[in-house]
Formats: sequence, structure tokens, C-alpha cells
Amino acid sequence: MIFSDSDIDNLPSRYRAQLMNSVTGFKNAQLIGTQDNQGQHNLAIFSSVTHLGSNPPLIGFITRPHTVQRHTLENVRENPFFTLNQVNIDNFEAAHQTAAKYDKGTSEFAATGLTPVIKPRIPAPFVDESHIHIGLKVVDEIGIELNQTVLVIGEVIHLELPVFTLQDDGKIDLHQVDSTCISGLDEYLHPTPLKRMPYAKA
Amino acid sequence: MIFSDSDIDNLPSRYRAQLMNSVTGFKNAQLIGTQDNQGQHNLAIFSSVTHLGSNPPLIGFITRPHTVQRHTLENVRENPFFTLNQVNIDNFEAAHQTAAKYDKGTSEFAATGLTPVIKPRIPAPFVDESHIHIGLKVVDEIGIELNQTVLVIGEVIHLELPVFTLQDDGKIDLHQVDSTCISGLDEYLHPTPLKRMPYAKA
Repeated sequence: MIFSDSDIDNLPSRYRAQLMNSVTGFKNAQLIGTQDNQGQHNLAIFSSVTHLGSNPPLIGFITRPHTVQRHTLENVRENPFFTLNQVNIDNFEAAHQTAAKYDKGTSEFAATGLTPVIKPRIPAPFVDESHIHIGLKVVDEIGIELNQTVLVIGEVIHLELPVFTLQDDGKIDLHQVDSTCISGLDEYLHPTPLKRMPYAKA
Repeated sequence: MIFSDSDIDNLPSRYRAQLMNSVTGFKNAQLIGTQDNQGQHNLAIFSSVTHLGSNPPLIGFITRPHTVQRHTLENVRENPFFTLNQVNIDNFEAAHQTAAKYDKGTSEFAATGLTPVIKPRIPAPFVDESHIHIGLKVVDEIGIELNQTVLVIGEVIHLELPVFTLQDDGKIDLHQVDSTCISGLDEYLHPTPLKRMPYAKA
């Protein structure tokens, strides 16, 4: 089956959103925790978290100003910190529910039953039910003019994980903590390891 | 186990790279096909492909100017088109091998045994062994000054996939074509569906 650019342009909006959100392949599932200057917590699921570099350790995510995710952007503009909390088999249903359009005054923690945890040096909430916790300071924000999205970039200043997930060479074994991935807007999957490949040489 | 920012800063470079590449969670595995103005093909595996929007249909990827992936960036600057080809259980080992440092004059297709396919309107090679083929025109390039990486943005102008993967609402069932995901720099995994969640309401 082939879709040309004009075919895609003519698709109903929801159909096109499902198609375009699933066509890029599997995505990580992360809960982003933030808080405003009054200490009000926000928690939102994202599937656009991307490794940008290891030295310095930079991680980005894409957000839009006009959706439910806007509270995350508003908060990091006030208070430039955020947490990344990996979604796993036990919490993906609650994590998905954070995508609902709650008022700014409603904490998604209270609404979904997830538990906020505060750690030193990071003025933003972590999710107790997640096993891998990353604390970041916002170091840049880049606007993408083509569609008014924003790439928010954080530098990792705190990383906490179970010691049994850490392999000898520094790789984290995500399978040990039942990490999930997302396809499209709403499907959650559990990846099973196939193989680690050796360093590729010509 | 806790790593502070100074702990991370003091890690050996390869250990830090393994850690930081795996901490963000699972990533899609895509082969990016490009060609220069002389028609020389290049094929490189990427795990940073990110959905940026559905209307217009925009997809980005992160690349660095100074690694083996630079041929991809050089090519799209000459000839602003690229293809995305999903990596699956049957081709992940050949796909990983495209990361080796081949000379600019060596086609990774010839080196790895993958088969180039040319389609109308896209002056860049697709990978015959992949089941989901996306053809894109480059519409923007954004430099990330913090670490000299580049976000290349393409607009989808061609999409081809097996009709049996297409669900009624437009979502693609990636499990039907044995799509894989990547953890860190070198681990390939096969995701098994858990559940599709309903639209989240407050």
C-alpha cells in the first residue's frame, strides 16, 4: 500500500495522526515530572525523549505549546528542572492516564495514583513506581518553526537506578526492570532481548 | 545506585557512552538511505528518529558532524532527500554492520548484503529487506550548539507498507512485520504487544 504526500494530506486528521505517530517505529515511554514556582506538580507521558549526547550528558524532548503537554513547557520555563521516569509493565496504565486534560491545579499524581518523590537538588517530582530516575536541568530550548513545536534540552545532574540493571560496560539492562515502549499514540509493548552486537568494523 | 553530575563527568568515556545511550529507554531502529550528487549510495543505522508532527507529516533525526554518520549529513546537504527503512528481526545484524567506518566510496549496501531499491520521486535508496519504507524531503536543519549535533527534519512524501499492517484507525501494527527496537548502542530487542489504551479522559 502506497501513500503519496497528497494522499497523506487528504487523510482525516485522526487517521493521519495514528499513521504518522506509528510509522517511525517504537518509542520510549517516559513520565516527565515538573513543578511551577508555587510547587504545584505536573506529570505527563511523553514518547519523544531523545538521547542527544553523552559528554555533556544531554537529553531532549519535543513538546507543543497548544496541547495538554503545555503545562510541562510552562513549568520548565518557570523552574528549569524536570525528571524522567521510565514507564514499566506495572505502571503503564496509570502513566497513560496522565495524558488526560486535567486543570493546571490538578496534580496528575493525585489523579492517577502515582506517588511523587522529591530528591535533593532537583526541584521537580520523581515517580516512585518507576525504577529509573533521571533528574535534569534545562540548558536550552529550541523552537521548530515549521510546526511550532519546541525541543527542550536538559543536562543530566542525577541518575538513580537499581544496581542489578547496570552491566559491566555501563549499559543498563532495561529488560530487568520491565521497561515498556510505545507504538503510535496508545499501544504499549514489552521488548524481549534478541542480541547484543559487537562493535561494527569495516 | 546514584550517579551525580560530577560522578557522570568522571566516568570513563566508553562507560559513560553506554550508560547515557541506554538510560533514555528503548529507541527505534531505522536505516537511513541517502545519495550524493554523483549517485553514490550511503546507508547508516540511526536510533534517534523522532516524530515531530502529523500535519504536516514531519520526522527528524539527530546526527553529528564528526562520526561515521557524517556521510548521511553530507549527502542530504547535497541532495535533500532521505529514506527511512525499519529494521526487523531478519535484517538487524546487517543493519548494525552499516555503523562500521566505510570509506565514502564504499556503499554500505554492497558491504552488508542489503539490497537498494529506487522508487519514483525519491533520489535516495530504500532497503528492500525492510517492510516499511518512508521517503522524505529535507525541509529544515537545526544546529544544536551545546554539542554540535544537528537535527535534520524531513517531510514525508512517500509511504509504503504491507496492507495487513494497517489497522482500521490508521495505526500501523509494527509487530506484524517483526520490527525491532534498540537499547543503548548495540542491543536489539523484539517488542511484544501488551495493550492498546483508550483515549485518556479527565
